[in-house]
Amino acid sequence: MTEARRSATETRHPTGTLERHGPIGTQREKEPGTPSDGHGPVVSDGREPMASDGHEAVMSEGHEAVALLRESRASVDPELRSAMASLPASMRRTALYHFGWQHADGTRAAGNAGKAIRPALVLTSAAALGGPGARAAAVRAAAAVELVHNFTLLHDDVMDRDATRRHRPTAWTVFGDADAILAGDALQALALRLLAADPHPASAAAATRLADCVMELCEGQHADTAMEGRAPGDVTLDETLAMAEAKTGALLGCACALGALYAGAADEDVEAMDAFGREAGLAFQLIDDVIGIWGDPRRTGKPAGADLAARKKSLPVVAALTSGTPAAAGLAELYATPYDEGKEDLERTALAVERAGGRDWAQAQAADRMARAMQELARAVPDPEAAGGLLALAEFVTRRST
Amino acid sequence: MTEARRSATETRHPTGTLERHGPIGTQREKEPGTPSDGHGPVVSDGREPMASDGHEAVMSEGHEAVALLRESRASVDPELRSAMASLPASMRRTALYHFGWQHADGTRAAGNAGKAIRPALVLTSAAALGGPGARAAAVRAAAAVELVHNFTLLHDDVMDRDATRRHRPTAWTVFGDADAILAGDALQALALRLLAADPHPASAAAATRLADCVMELCEGQHADTAMEGRAPGDVTLDETLAMAEAKTGALLGCACALGALYAGAADEDVEAMDAFGREAGLAFQLIDDVIGIWGDPRRTGKPAGADLAARKKSLPVVAALTSGTPAAAGLAELYATPYDEGKEDLERTALAVERAGGRDWAQAQAADRMARAMQELARAVPDPEAAGGLLALAEFVTRRST
Repeated sequence: MTEARRSATETRHPTGTLERHGPIGTQREKEPGTPSDGHGPVVSDGREPMASDGHEAVMSEGHEAVALLRESRASVDPELRSAMASLPASMRRTALYHFGWQHADGTRAAGNAGKAIRPALVLTSAAALGGPGARAAAVRAAAAVELVHNFTLLHDDVMDRDATRRHRPTAWTVFGDADAILAGDALQALALRLLAADPHPASAAAATRLADCVMELCEGQHADTAMEGRAPGDVTLDETLAMAEAKTGALLGCACALGALYAGAADEDVEAMDAFGREAGLAFQLIDDVIGIWGDPRRTGKPAGADLAARKKSLPVVAALTSGTPAAAGLAELYATPYDEGKEDLERTALAVERAGGRDWAQAQAADRMARAMQELARAVPDPEAAGGLLALAEFVTRRST
Repeated sequence: MTEARRSATETRHPTGTLERHGPIGTQREKEPGTPSDGHGPVVSDGREPMASDGHEAVMSEGHEAVALLRESRASVDPELRSAMASLPASMRRTALYHFGWQHADGTRAAGNAGKAIRPALVLTSAAALGGPGARAAAVRAAAAVELVHNFTLLHDDVMDRDATRRHRPTAWTVFGDADAILAGDALQALALRLLAADPHPASAAAATRLADCVMELCEGQHADTAMEGRAPGDVTLDETLAMAEAKTGALLGCACALGALYAGAADEDVEAMDAFGREAGLAFQLIDDVIGIWGDPRRTGKPAGADLAARKKSLPVVAALTSGTPAAAGLAELYATPYDEGKEDLERTALAVERAGGRDWAQAQAADRMARAMQELARAVPDPEAAGGLLALAEFVTRRST
């Protein structure tokens, strides 16, 4: 762990609710005063707003967030395209395909590079702390964060043998493992090059932070891969949360921190913005896991229960497995045997997770994480009007806006 | 191709012998006045001094180079170890194993991380252009170059399914593909982080150059992989030379350029040092390919002809195949059929390469590249005494010293 991350960890729990470090199995107990009370259900419908392209889902959620994402794309895409034009030919081909900007044969595609929530967080954080000038200065950093995100997607798909992303065949299925690995390597280099060549006074600190984040993302992916290979009873809730923070929270936190750096923010505000992004990222992952079990397949393009069928050790499942309830034992038994195709298996498994408290725990945790995110945001950006865009984005990714 | 690389390409052929861009098949013609005349045989014995650990081979070649490599290791190893200590646990385990500093079970190993010629080139270039102060300032950059080199080795071994490196099982065979890919990703991030966090005024330019080099290395590896999958007759000498320059020359050139940057050298000297390293790197590759066919197996630990048995499209082989000689047709026939185990096949194939002029061409090319390297070096470091260390290293890697 690097110094930057260490200090972030130390400062980002002002409420003292450090349940990540508490004894295993206690996390699912709702703590008194957690802000899930009175917030109503955290989960709406739709899934993976960070990756899907369902326009109807977008339009039904948070007009302000949608506008911010659109404006961010308009600012960052030219920077991304110009950076990717400097890639050697074969890396460029694979990368442009992965971004959805080219077909496999190299012809132009309409493009579906995802929502690009991360660059929007960079630009919106810069604007919140430094106004329009800071936002304009941070466009390179926003592109760098998006390049890092896509480098990890290219490599994760190879490792996980995932065949589909954004409704298209993944790059390794089209170009082979070697080209997908090399394109990822080149995108990481390109990301850090953008910052190294940026004359802005914050660029060196931003590059250092982004490189640290890459190492944390690698550790998160390692933990995810390693955990999936282990027996369900061997996985603790602590390590599942730590994995989700490293794999999902770290880059959202880094995006916000980079925006703050480009706004010339004080160190403690940079750390608070990192914590804001991390906590919001964990809330997103919790909600995403809930939707992965109980979500509406018409909205997600993915059958409800796909995670259960794959016996995935998602957060609600691990919370259920480690709950010490009678339902936990039944769930462990189900997870120890391969998925028995048919609706009944999924219904029984989902019910076991719910009875063992996995759903309630995840919703309470998500609400708690969002509350912490709001606290951190208020610390770094006390003016509610200035903080409005970031609030809208956080609510958008956690599906709380309507 | 990036701007930095483009300008390097433009400036590094002062002699006008741009045979890389000449018509295919003409390269094997020895050009009048190439300095191979009168230099005697370029090839000595031994193989892969950049990767092997045979001490007897080291001691018989260039005492000055050996001393420089030892002093470089002493300066860079503490920096490397301290940087690697900051890696997340699982990346650290894989990386320390790959460096030979730990066994697979995490216990301490005697260590065989190769000769580390690249960090020695960084430090010796810095010293040649800026004296001991520049050398001391460039230790981080030297460590960064070595981290990049090892990141590419980790990934190349996965892609090429190579099972052995430095006489040990490769990381992917021990920890699996995912961990080897992730450790490589983390080492790249760590390398660029070292430079990003370095307050030296040259660090940003160095990071930009190193990131550009990573992209070139990726392209070289892509070209290598793609060429091995093609029919022997489809591969041109131009693209084989371009591949070797990207895969081997680029990082040696970058190492020398980074040393020059840390010495505060003028732009044209930085480019000349890059060209010096590239040309010496190509000379190395040519010699290495010759030894791969005709070398002494007692010295290399690898049977002579292993490259031929694998039907590898090494530089002498492609020169022979594209020579238009009668022997070329016979060689193409041999290469079109899989290796027929037994000494006879290898002897016939080696003879065909030799008769088609592949061996002579490679030796003349290597001598020519070394002559250009010397010209570039003399331009950047006119004082022969100051240039002595770099000359010794270049001779060491091309086995010309005794």
